[in-house]
Amino acid sequence: MTFNTTLEGIKTYEAGKPIELVVREFGIASSDIIKLASNENPKGCSPKVQEAVRHMISKMALYPDDSMFALKRALASRFDVNDNELIIGAGSDQIIEFLIHAKANNNTKVLMSAVTFAMYEIYARHVGAEVIRTPSYEHRFDEFYAAYQTYKPGIIFICTPNNPTGDAVDREALYQFLKKIDSDTLVVVDGAYMEYAAFKDPTKAVVPKELIGRFANVIYLGTFSKAYGLGGMRVGYGIAGENIIAALYKLRPPFNITTLSLEAATVALRDNAFVEESVAECFDEMKHFETFAARAGIEAIPSYTNFVTLQLHKEQNSSDLAFALLKKGIIVRDLSSYGLNAIRVTIGTPEQNRRFFEQFTTVL
Amino acid sequence: MTFNTTLEGIKTYEAGKPIELVVREFGIASSDIIKLASNENPKGCSPKVQEAVRHMISKMALYPDDSMFALKRALASRFDVNDNELIIGAGSDQIIEFLIHAKANNNTKVLMSAVTFAMYEIYARHVGAEVIRTPSYEHRFDEFYAAYQTYKPGIIFICTPNNPTGDAVDREALYQFLKKIDSDTLVVVDGAYMEYAAFKDPTKAVVPKELIGRFANVIYLGTFSKAYGLGGMRVGYGIAGENIIAALYKLRPPFNITTLSLEAATVALRDNAFVEESVAECFDEMKHFETFAARAGIEAIPSYTNFVTLQLHKEQNSSDLAFALLKKGIIVRDLSSYGLNAIRVTIGTPEQNRRFFEQFTTVL
Repeated sequence: MTFNTTLEGIKTYEAGKPIELVVREFGIASSDIIKLASNENPKGCSPKVQEAVRHMISKMALYPDDSMFALKRALASRFDVNDNELIIGAGSDQIIEFLIHAKANNNTKVLMSAVTFAMYEIYARHVGAEVIRTPSYEHRFDEFYAAYQTYKPGIIFICTPNNPTGDAVDREALYQFLKKIDSDTLVVVDGAYMEYAAFKDPTKAVVPKELIGRFANVIYLGTFSKAYGLGGMRVGYGIAGENIIAALYKLRPPFNITTLSLEAATVALRDNAFVEESVAECFDEMKHFETFAARAGIEAIPSYTNFVTLQLHKEQNSSDLAFALLKKGIIVRDLSSYGLNAIRVTIGTPEQNRRFFEQFTTVL
Repeated sequence: MTFNTTLEGIKTYEAGKPIELVVREFGIASSDIIKLASNENPKGCSPKVQEAVRHMISKMALYPDDSMFALKRALASRFDVNDNELIIGAGSDQIIEFLIHAKANNNTKVLMSAVTFAMYEIYARHVGAEVIRTPSYEHRFDEFYAAYQTYKPGIIFICTPNNPTGDAVDREALYQFLKKIDSDTLVVVDGAYMEYAAFKDPTKAVVPKELIGRFANVIYLGTFSKAYGLGGMRVGYGIAGENIIAALYKLRPPFNITTLSLEAATVALRDNAFVEESVAECFDEMKHFETFAARAGIEAIPSYTNFVTLQLHKEQNSSDLAFALLKKGIIVRDLSSYGLNAIRVTIGTPEQNRRFFEQFTTVL
C-alpha cells in the first residue's frame, strides 16, 4: 500500500507503555509515583465542574450540541467577542491543525522559535510545509522579523508564555512586531499558559479582543487544559476575525468535543475563583523552586507558567537525570530532544514539590 | 487573508442553534421533546460504564494515557488481533479523516455509494479529491466494480450496514468483490452499525480478523457511538494490517481521546450483555415500525441498524413531514439533502416509538 509522500517526513509519536507502568517496574507503588511532566493542574479541576459532569454521566449516549451554544456564549461573554469570532477544538492542538491545513501546503514556510511547542512542527509536516526556526529559544522579535523578511512565511507561531521554556514576551513588543507583518501572513498567538503570565506580570498579558481588533491576520489560542485543570477533557479555543474563523470552521469535524467536555468547559468558565487560586498557589510554590535552583547552582529560566525549566551544567546530562528521577518514581520532562540540556518540571502540590526537591538532591 | 484553494470546495456544516431550543420555540416542554435523529442508543450506556466514569471524574485534569494501553488490550482481545493492527479515533470519523489524509490528494478519486455516510465526501473535499458515486443507493458490487474499472479510485468506501439507508451487504459478496480489487486501492469497510447487522443476519456479519487476514488493503472501522451507547464520548476504532495502521498513526494527534472516554470505552467492552440487550430490544421495536409502515402504505427499507428509513410517496414531501414532526416535538432526519424523499428515524424506547407513530399519523 502506497501513501501520500508527505507521510515520509512524519515521525510517529511512539507512546509505548504508560510511564506509570514503567515506573512500577522499578518496584514503586502506584500511589508513590509523582507526575510532574505534563503541566497538569495539581489541584485538579473545580469541584463545581466535577459536580456538573457527574450530573451529565447519564447523557453519555447523546451526541454533543454541535453548535456548542452554551460554551460559545460563555466564552464570548468572558472575552467580550462575538460567537463568530470563536472556534472550539479538541484542545488548542486541534485548532493548530485546522490553521495549518487551512493556510499551509508544501510551498509554505512556517516560522517559529528554536524551542517551542512541538505540535507546530508536527502539523506543518502533515502538509509538507517547511519549518523555519529563529536562532534563540526565547522569542526575540528581531530574530523573528529578520526570518520573516528572508523567508516570507505563511504562518508565524508566537507561543507566549512559551512551552517548554516558560518565558513570555511583552505585549507592547508583540504589537510593535505585528505592525510590521503583512496582512496575508497568519500569526498565531498561543496563550495556553496566559492565565499564569497575566497574574505574574500584567505587561505580558495579551488581551484577545484588543489583539484581534488591532490585527486582522492574528488568531489567539487558549485552552482549558492548564489553569482550568481539564487536560484530560481536550478543550481549547481560538479567537480571531470572522473570516479566519469561517475558514477554520470548514475543516472542523462535527462533534469534535465530547458531551462531558462541553459541560466541563462551560461550567469551568463560571468558576474563575478556582483558576485564580490555582495560579496564585502555583507562584507561591514556584518560589521554592527558585530558591532550590539557586542553592543547587542550577539556572531556572524565569517562568510565567505552571512549570519551571531547569538548565543543567555541562557536566550534568538531562536524560540521565530524568531517568534517575524516574527510578525514584518522579516523572519530569527531559528536554534533550529540544536541543536543551534541561528538564521541565511542573509545579505540583507542596507535598509533591518537597519530594521532588529531596529526590532531585540525591540524584544531582 | 487568503487560504488554500481546497477550502473553496468545502461547505461549512452550519450547526445553528441546538434543535431542542428550536423545538422549545414551538412551545414544547424540554421533557416532551423526542430526538430520533442521531441513532443514539435509547437505553443510554451500560450502568457499569457510568459507574466507572463516575470514579474517574476526579481525574479530569490528567491527560489520557496516550498509548491507550487498556483500551487497546480490550479491543485486541475482543477482535483477536494485535495491538499494532489497531488505531483509536475520536469517533470512527477521525479515522476516516486520517485515511483520507494519508492516501488521498487532489489527484485521487474516492468511490462510494450514491447515498452513504456524509463524512466520506466531506473529508475527501478537504484534500481536493474527486468523489465518484455508484448509481444506486444500495451497495451494488456490480456498480462498484464498474466504477472501479473506469475511475481507478485510490479509496473505496463500503458502509455496511449503510447509513442513512440501513441496508447491508452479504459478507461473501463483499469478499468476492475485494478479490478483484488491486492491492494499492484502500478499501474501507465501515461497520459502525455492524453489531445490529450481525444479530439480525449472520450472513451480513463481517469479522475484522478474517477480513484483514484475507485482504491486506482493507481497513475495518467500528464505533462505540451506536450499540455501546457512547455517542457523546467520541470513540471509534480501525482494524487493519500493521502497515496501514502505521501510516495512520503518523497523522494521529496525541491525546485524541479524553481521559473519561478512554475509561468509558474500555469498560463498555466488558459489558457485552448490555450491547446484546440493546440490539435485541431494537429489533423487537423495529417490528412495530414495519407494521406501522405497511399499514400506512409507506416503504420501510429493510434495516440492519438501529434506525429505519421510510421512503415516502411522491405526493408526500420529506422536508415538510420532518418539519411537521418538529412542531410536535419529534426530531427525525430528513434525507432530502441525500436526494431521497425519505426520513430516517432512530428506533427509540417503546414509549418514544409509540409517540412517533401517533404523531406521524396526524401529519401524514
